[in-house]
Amino acid sequence: MGRVTETKRIRTVRVRDGRLYAGRKGDHVAVEEPLDIRLNGQQLSLTMRTPGNDVELIHGFLHGEGLIKSREDIAEARYCDGAVVDDGTGFAQNTYNVMDFTTARPQLLPVITKRFTTTSACGVCGSDSIDAVRQKGRYALAEDWSVDPRAILDAARNLTDDQAVFARTGGVHAAALVRADGEVLAVREDVGRHNAVDKVIGWALLEDRLPLTDCFLLVSSRASFEIAQKAFMAGIPLLACVSAASSLAIDTAEEVRMTLVGFTRAFDDGDGRMNVYTHAERLDLSDVEG
Amino acid sequence: MGRVTETKRIRTVRVRDGRLYAGRKGDHVAVEEPLDIRLNGQQLSLTMRTPGNDVELIHGFLHGEGLIKSREDIAEARYCDGAVVDDGTGFAQNTYNVMDFTTARPQLLPVITKRFTTTSACGVCGSDSIDAVRQKGRYALAEDWSVDPRAILDAARNLTDDQAVFARTGGVHAAALVRADGEVLAVREDVGRHNAVDKVIGWALLEDRLPLTDCFLLVSSRASFEIAQKAFMAGIPLLACVSAASSLAIDTAEEVRMTLVGFTRAFDDGDGRMNVYTHAERLDLSDVEG
Repeated sequence: MGRVTETKRIRTVRVRDGRLYAGRKGDHVAVEEPLDIRLNGQQLSLTMRTPGNDVELIHGFLHGEGLIKSREDIAEARYCDGAVVDDGTGFAQNTYNVMDFTTARPQLLPVITKRFTTTSACGVCGSDSIDAVRQKGRYALAEDWSVDPRAILDAARNLTDDQAVFARTGGVHAAALVRADGEVLAVREDVGRHNAVDKVIGWALLEDRLPLTDCFLLVSSRASFEIAQKAFMAGIPLLACVSAASSLAIDTAEEVRMTLVGFTRAFDDGDGRMNVYTHAERLDLSDVEG
Repeated sequence: MGRVTETKRIRTVRVRDGRLYAGRKGDHVAVEEPLDIRLNGQQLSLTMRTPGNDVELIHGFLHGEGLIKSREDIAEARYCDGAVVDDGTGFAQNTYNVMDFTTARPQLLPVITKRFTTTSACGVCGSDSIDAVRQKGRYALAEDWSVDPRAILDAARNLTDDQAVFARTGGVHAAALVRADGEVLAVREDVGRHNAVDKVIGWALLEDRLPLTDCFLLVSSRASFEIAQKAFMAGIPLLACVSAASSLAIDTAEEVRMTLVGFTRAFDDGDGRMNVYTHAERLDLSDVEG
């Protein structure tokens, strides 16, 4: 895990009552490194991520894009042997920043190539984006699943404890898969919020747990369209974010019948609050007071 | 500004002393919509952004990628006429989500096409990314410019006041160009932090103010590699972020001789603090106390 955080020597500057104070200290920062994602030898994407759980990340990314549906779709995942740098000693060293995935069925490739070519259709709007997601989706979200809002707040409170890298750096996003009874299935962290989500969903795919019909996805960040898309593709019935939700995340959740919760704020004393943007019927409010 | 925020009807849930309370209210959310960026009629990128200042955004994006260097490189920027949706009345309505930029010199296009094809080079690591940025850069950063740390804290304090959309939604990122004397040149907001930076730099490019040798870039978010890259390409000597900086942002700033400040925290009472990761010599610490 040495590559997840790095120590840097920094200067600190403080202002108190208008006066300047300066110091020096060591500081932990989150590592960001490029990851070159290749499919059948061809570059598919270059993403900046925190190293670790790369295999999960790429599985989750491919799943969110609708390119694979289970672990059987990938025959081999390996760090590219040729991805080496001279480490200064004269010996070549693998960067572990280039991964090549080989699909089990070669016919996957033409589909992917097509996806990345220019479209001639000229209209583009939020509804088009939502339609595209709906067409790619494989799962209808569970309608008979519900969760006590207190379980969501408890999970948000615990997320900070589970965020080992965040605790050291203050510089990463976390994503967690949590069951209604509070059991945390997986937590992953990354400098990129999309990557953290890809990692937990990739974990679930590798564990043959898709669709994730009986848990919610909690993210430490905002909920954008792409986060809602990834959750829907994985069959997750409820997405809770600690920060705000965008208009398109809300419209997407409404359309695909996903519950979207924002501003999930859990206070230390056990109190808390949240905004429910869509499909509040999955929140168990049977003992609500007012 | 009607498309920058939207009002949604939401449910609110609170927990107090273990008991549930529920309510309803109207809530402002930040708008997220796709923007299809085309160059000479070909799709270059599809980005999710908050509508508004699209012309600035695309100029800034193209500049950050090293594809244009001044406003003269773009002959025409227009919303695609054919980008229409039926608004339900039977009349077609422009989505304003597709923009086509025409380059002044057609030879720009092959360069761009080359950039987006697969590379056969197999090694990729942080240093490669930094080298690529350095090669694209046109400006050496001003060495004789400095700023009082109190000016950075004041700007961070004022940013919240200037963030009209943030104040309403809590859901956007802001970027600001600020001179050492505190004058704010431009502030832009967006659901995407890269977009907010592209918008202010695009603004500067359209105002013929590049390179931005005499101001700093303040962002409400974290500083990642890409934010550092965009600042360097615009000739900005100092980047200050409110949240954390990643390892690769720090390494990039070190290499290109940019001052990088993180965790810029300005308190209401006038006090504050910051971490200086690189090139602290641009911070005027002449009257430091300890």
